[in-house]
Amino acid sequence: MTDTPLRIGIAGLGTVGAATLGYLTGENARIAARAGRALRVDAVVARDRTKDRGVDMASLRWFDDPIAMASDEGVDLYVELMGGADGVAKASVEAALAAGKPVVTANKALLAHHGAALAELAERTPGASLHYEAAVAGGIPAVKALREGLAGNGVTRVSGILNGTCNYILTEMAGTGAAFGDVLAEAQRLGYAEADPTADVGGFDAAHKLAIMAAIAFGRRIDFDGVRIEGIESVAAEDIVAARDMGYVIRLLGVAERGAAGVSQRLRPCLTPAESPLGKIAGVTNAVMLEGDAVGATILTGPGAGGGPTASAVLADIVDVARGNTPPTFGVAAAALTPADDGANDADRGAFYLRVMLEDRPGTLAEVAAALGRSGISIHRMRQHDHADGAAPVTIVTHACDLAEIEAAKERIAALDVCTASPVSMRIVES
Amino acid sequence: MTDTPLRIGIAGLGTVGAATLGYLTGENARIAARAGRALRVDAVVARDRTKDRGVDMASLRWFDDPIAMASDEGVDLYVELMGGADGVAKASVEAALAAGKPVVTANKALLAHHGAALAELAERTPGASLHYEAAVAGGIPAVKALREGLAGNGVTRVSGILNGTCNYILTEMAGTGAAFGDVLAEAQRLGYAEADPTADVGGFDAAHKLAIMAAIAFGRRIDFDGVRIEGIESVAAEDIVAARDMGYVIRLLGVAERGAAGVSQRLRPCLTPAESPLGKIAGVTNAVMLEGDAVGATILTGPGAGGGPTASAVLADIVDVARGNTPPTFGVAAAALTPADDGANDADRGAFYLRVMLEDRPGTLAEVAAALGRSGISIHRMRQHDHADGAAPVTIVTHACDLAEIEAAKERIAALDVCTASPVSMRIVES
Repeated sequence: MTDTPLRIGIAGLGTVGAATLGYLTGENARIAARAGRALRVDAVVARDRTKDRGVDMASLRWFDDPIAMASDEGVDLYVELMGGADGVAKASVEAALAAGKPVVTANKALLAHHGAALAELAERTPGASLHYEAAVAGGIPAVKALREGLAGNGVTRVSGILNGTCNYILTEMAGTGAAFGDVLAEAQRLGYAEADPTADVGGFDAAHKLAIMAAIAFGRRIDFDGVRIEGIESVAAEDIVAARDMGYVIRLLGVAERGAAGVSQRLRPCLTPAESPLGKIAGVTNAVMLEGDAVGATILTGPGAGGGPTASAVLADIVDVARGNTPPTFGVAAAALTPADDGANDADRGAFYLRVMLEDRPGTLAEVAAALGRSGISIHRMRQHDHADGAAPVTIVTHACDLAEIEAAKERIAALDVCTASPVSMRIVES
Repeated sequence: MTDTPLRIGIAGLGTVGAATLGYLTGENARIAARAGRALRVDAVVARDRTKDRGVDMASLRWFDDPIAMASDEGVDLYVELMGGADGVAKASVEAALAAGKPVVTANKALLAHHGAALAELAERTPGASLHYEAAVAGGIPAVKALREGLAGNGVTRVSGILNGTCNYILTEMAGTGAAFGDVLAEAQRLGYAEADPTADVGGFDAAHKLAIMAAIAFGRRIDFDGVRIEGIESVAAEDIVAARDMGYVIRLLGVAERGAAGVSQRLRPCLTPAESPLGKIAGVTNAVMLEGDAVGATILTGPGAGGGPTASAVLADIVDVARGNTPPTFGVAAAALTPADDGANDADRGAFYLRVMLEDRPGTLAEVAAALGRSGISIHRMRQHDHADGAAPVTIVTHACDLAEIEAAKERIAALDVCTASPVSMRIVES
């Protein structure tokens, strides 16, 4: 064990930053023993210098400018916990990498939007490396499992429940029968959802994580724009009931998989069997399922957010840096990452669930069935549900068909006079 | 990427060895890209040189003596896949480490019995390192998750379902109502259990894995002899029914945890809630639950055995070696590993399940209740079950008591005239 301390600079002392700082000071000896090297938080950047963070901060050097701290000669390792895809987070990470330093970050948006360029910068700069375990699924060591634990595998599929807020909302909707908006409001009151919930319920946060995992899994340049994203806003209580009647639950799934048309990346609510590994994940828990030719499938579950769990991942990266474990950013040399497969998302064939809201009068079901038939879709199950307010929900499960056929059918159905709201469709996945 | 190949010698071409060789040859370019270095299997040891392993082996150097291969100058990395706690497996691993080479092994018995000495040898020999991801839970990257992913955590508990054969048997018993012996025979016929099932059903295989995880988790010298081991042979169909009636399933759990008396290590069948994370694990699947102060709990599930999954773990270690990721064997310097905590296993307090077989005549229940009372045990639930063959199973759930009290009560009950068989007890765990 070398006595020369690794001097750490932390930018951002919010929930995660404060927790990281707390462990690095309060449990310093234990973590240093694992790191094989003395660890010292040397410098910090935070908005409020006066806030009590439960840690004696008198010995720390305070910086106002993260870029200055990242470039400072007294900082060996730059830890970026401010967030944001651009601006000072990006500039400071670039500054640290350009200065030949390892960088640890929890910033999934930064990775998703600029990961390819940052990986190239890290690779061409001696001493630089980029670590981001905390950017995917919080405390679950998903990046490590994929990039290192499954390094020998030809990965076929990575999937998961990557946003605890959405899984909480969907679980609560199923448990209470309440509408999406009501459960969201309750989640906001409890602190499980942000005041502006778009990043969560719109699927963007989970899509960041999926794009990162897909890059590692398939050795591709990260391609966030290539993720087909659909949030959970249109999931209705009726959908959850209809799914349950057939043995399914609705989960916001991220799925990246290799198919004949290339690697697809999709983030969307799906019907998945209630007894499947991902169907069983309830509440704020996250889950990551990794499938490869050698391992088959391995599933990791745990807390996907929060100060402690995210700090756990940040600390793992810090220990990795101290131990000298600096694998390529996305598991292979940045130059070897392959370009995205345009169009792979369109090759989407399988069974779909459809919900159509219809005026309750004779002949409406026949019109819908005819519209499906004209779109080349054959019906596996079709059911009209009870209703109280004039419009009758009709739920349909198709036999395997193409997404394009579903989209065409939805347009046809929406154009029917008897249709009172935009039809909703969700893919049915069996694992 | 360096072009100098890492020259690999593999000892043992059974199921795992052959699978590893197959991936390293058939998927060489892909794995080398991840390794950042050319990989070449250079030498092998196997009993049968003529067997078709689906790989062209003409270019390989064959050794009869693993020790000679481990010491050979042309071998950079020694992969030990023969098994066995002692003998040539141990001697060859020692030879490779002494020669300053990295070693990858799937040999849990070797690690469990000699891990501390091997870690010291690896540490004092420049160039040597010991990698054993495949020794714990097959394809699940459990070692990596614990030693690296949770490196920043003060670990409080590691637990798991660590033997697929036992979990298959217990799941089948619950599904079919069949007796242990019948399900074991069926498992043997299907190839899920060995002809000599002792290592599996006696708990020894799982205990090896638990001892390894406990050493990493708590930074202790590995202490296999300190694991309290109880197999599943005495689990009866009645126990499974009684457990189910109360919402529990029976699982062979390995649990190592830090308590007031130190770190305990126990491997035994337990009643665990059917809806708990480990209770939900069915069939041959393995599961590892890691709990720490920062992360909370994270759970990894997947295939715990088999050629492909185990090879996946072996390949991960090979890639780690090629990338230069050689953390301390048990996560901290070997000299810093602390000694075992004698007696920690005895500090075992909680609710227990008891099954007593009684002659079916008046007053017998009262005698059992009195024996429990004399042992200081208070009864939470007590139930007499249907029976067909003279002896009535009585199942009891206690309030929290000490294991010593349970053992004393079992002795008292066994001494009763009305007791027709040795009482069986199992701990009830709530997660």
